Amino acid sequence: MKQREKLSKESYKGTRDFYPEDMAVRKYIFSTMRKAVEKFGYVEYDASMIEETGLYRAKSGEEIVNEQTYSFKDRGGRDVTIRPEMTPTVARMIAKKRKELSFPLRWYSIPNLFRYERPQKGRLREHWQLNVDMFGVDSISADVEMIAVPYAIMNEFGAQNDQFVIKVNDRRITNFFLSEYLGMNETEAHDLSKLIDKKEKMPEGEFFLSAQEILGEQTEKFVAFLNIKDITALPEEFSGYETVKSLAEIIDSLADRGITNVVYDPSIMRGFDYYTGVVFEVFDTSSENNRSMFGGGRYDDLVGIFDVEKVSAIGFGAGDVIILDFLKTHNLIPGKILSVVDLCLCVFEKKYERVAQELADHLRKEGLNVSVDISERKIASQIKTADKQDVKYIICIGEDEVQTGKYKLKDMDSREEKEVAKEEIVRNMEVNNEQTRKL
Amino acid sequence: MKQREKLSKESYKGTRDFYPEDMAVRKYIFSTMRKAVEKFGYVEYDASMIEETGLYRAKSGEEIVNEQTYSFKDRGGRDVTIRPEMTPTVARMIAKKRKELSFPLRWYSIPNLFRYERPQKGRLREHWQLNVDMFGVDSISADVEMIAVPYAIMNEFGAQNDQFVIKVNDRRITNFFLSEYLGMNETEAHDLSKLIDKKEKMPEGEFFLSAQEILGEQTEKFVAFLNIKDITALPEEFSGYETVKSLAEIIDSLADRGITNVVYDPSIMRGFDYYTGVVFEVFDTSSENNRSMFGGGRYDDLVGIFDVEKVSAIGFGAGDVIILDFLKTHNLIPGKILSVVDLCLCVFEKKYERVAQELADHLRKEGLNVSVDISERKIASQIKTADKQDVKYIICIGEDEVQTGKYKLKDMDSREEKEVAKEEIVRNMEVNNEQTRKL
Repeated sequence: MKQREKLSKESYKGTRDFYPEDMAVRKYIFSTMRKAVEKFGYVEYDASMIEETGLYRAKSGEEIVNEQTYSFKDRGGRDVTIRPEMTPTVARMIAKKRKELSFPLRWYSIPNLFRYERPQKGRLREHWQLNVDMFGVDSISADVEMIAVPYAIMNEFGAQNDQFVIKVNDRRITNFFLSEYLGMNETEAHDLSKLIDKKEKMPEGEFFLSAQEILGEQTEKFVAFLNIKDITALPEEFSGYETVKSLAEIIDSLADRGITNVVYDPSIMRGFDYYTGVVFEVFDTSSENNRSMFGGGRYDDLVGIFDVEKVSAIGFGAGDVIILDFLKTHNLIPGKILSVVDLCLCVFEKKYERVAQELADHLRKEGLNVSVDISERKIASQIKTADKQDVKYIICIGEDEVQTGKYKLKDMDSREEKEVAKEEIVRNMEVNNEQTRKL
Repeated sequence: MKQREKLSKESYKGTRDFYPEDMAVRKYIFSTMRKAVEKFGYVEYDASMIEETGLYRAKSGEEIVNEQTYSFKDRGGRDVTIRPEMTPTVARMIAKKRKELSFPLRWYSIPNLFRYERPQKGRLREHWQLNVDMFGVDSISADVEMIAVPYAIMNEFGAQNDQFVIKVNDRRITNFFLSEYLGMNETEAHDLSKLIDKKEKMPEGEFFLSAQEILGEQTEKFVAFLNIKDITALPEEFSGYETVKSLAEIIDSLADRGITNVVYDPSIMRGFDYYTGVVFEVFDTSSENNRSMFGGGRYDDLVGIFDVEKVSAIGFGAGDVIILDFLKTHNLIPGKILSVVDLCLCVFEKKYERVAQELADHLRKEGLNVSVDISERKIASQIKTADKQDVKYIICIGEDEVQTGKYKLKDMDSREEKEVAKEEIVRNMEVNNEQTRKL
């Protein structure tokens, strides 16, 4: 307190404070994601929030690093960046232990990420993103699994098939269309693929005009191509193309496993340059929340940029802000996820606190989460606080309880009371099980 | 991949990569902490890693902000800092909802923190720190609980009373000694208290000489005072002092609850200026790991600096790096904490993969974590990988299995095999329970 200045009580722009009730929701989201991906055998990893800037320059280009990241020089003169995405980090980690690691690997992480942008619905400067990746397998089976996992996550959240849609593509098909079918050169094809990626964020007319500048008379063919929603409806010239067959097989395999809300969409390209094959995104079907919730694809060349032998890779990311919007839109957040406190012991007078503390210590050993009200306020205030803080049961301790050794266990939901002895307390409570504790 | 440069595979200086085996240990540490503090009714909160720099300037002074933090200007010209500690943030959050929150509050968090310093044993630039705080109660009961919680955490880790010691003090006692007993003025007292705080990190002679510069002939009394390890052994002049009585009562109450490894230590001061009363630290008794593992105290004035009504507060922090050192020193990390994969399905030939996928989907619905080996390698390589990745059971699927519907379930620890039908698999496995899943 060396100097006094008017202090802001707000969190930094574009970031959130997680009060316990918000944190409970975040924990619910993360634990649901963890549960779903661990069922497929993925194991968790993590790394530092700060990386040397070179890691992003190599992969994303100078422009993204300079305009969209938090980058600065540390006191030792190193250029560092707060990670805007996890993929470069995981590629670095795989490259570092390329020879020791035993492939195939199934890895996931829920990193905290920062990007510098204007905060808006579904996008903040700070967010968390589930990252799921498989390394060492380049096959249709791997592609199918990497699309089945987001589906399983949505399932675990209780989402129905009609509430979301999985859009798949293979970059090579769109590139084939641009270069072979329309005869674009490499630069034109690259510009067009970037344009496709921005399509959803642009007014339709503007997209068309921008495409026309590059394509001229071929614009209509281009637009028609982008509107294809069935892989079997691609122009005849594509029929012998191996990649089209593979993608059709992926869509069929998913349908076999009950994952039927999958559509082919040639406009799915994903922004990052590192994708090399299959790409996919998961969208909310509700018009209120029309951003992509999950996005991913195959990136077989990324690990190789660290001068180690290539490792094939496929993965996806899913941001917490947009998933939260989805859960709210579809009313999928369960009630009562805050309460980790099973029992609050209220005391009529300070002198009973010691008995309460002993009882609390005893019940904690039996596995309960027990708080003791040590505020020395009136009993009514203590009960009110317990209620506000969503505690499940209370016991009030006074002369009667101390004399008889019997306690009135009150269920704060049903408002029912039961008189029980010390050793009967636990078995008379319906406490949150391990599932809730996991949150 | 716009430009090719020699890329480092190392994490940024002073930070760690958490490969799955490291992450499993970190998850074990965090979940054990969570379990222990939730037993006392604490609920989790969080906030952004980035705060406006003013938050730290107000509390820690310009010097600490400039020399020891990651601070920079964002693109909008705001001074921002990556949080070096959580207390200013939680004080800000409490101040922001001062009127809505229902006190007393028991809150905890496990934030990721950064500080700029030379990495050394037990101290890195990036670490995680459990923060536990109680708001709204200023009493001996609150102080006792806030010291009982670190004890409970150490217990939950399996630590014995002789493996750690809790050192307690009340800043006001040491200040009373300096100003009333030795007659120091405010500046001298402040300089001496800062010196005491650095004592453990200085050569003994240097500490003595620095003290002598301020104290002259009184140095010996000062040194004798700092060596007192029993609160009843304080000079006679202290006997009527209320704070001494309170601290003695705290030590007694802890002993009553079985917490006997508590000693009074007048040299415990804690670095931060915001502490106002009881302060404490927990040390490893092993000489290999002599840093403070937990540190905390009462800070009743901090919330008030946001121009809201004061809220009394007491809390502590515990860093993950130093706790990990403790667990390693005392051999307290349980084996087999990595394996979240219950079962790996290996396939003799690609054509059996579909059967494996169906079986996997079925078992996932029954709650198992199941990976399918889709690498198309020889069966021996598949089994070797499963073993290396610490999978608990495997089933190999080939013609026999498809024909008979019987599967050989192999326990990778005992190497025993059992032949079972599909619906008997789950009940024949000793899978990790919810406790392990929580990690």
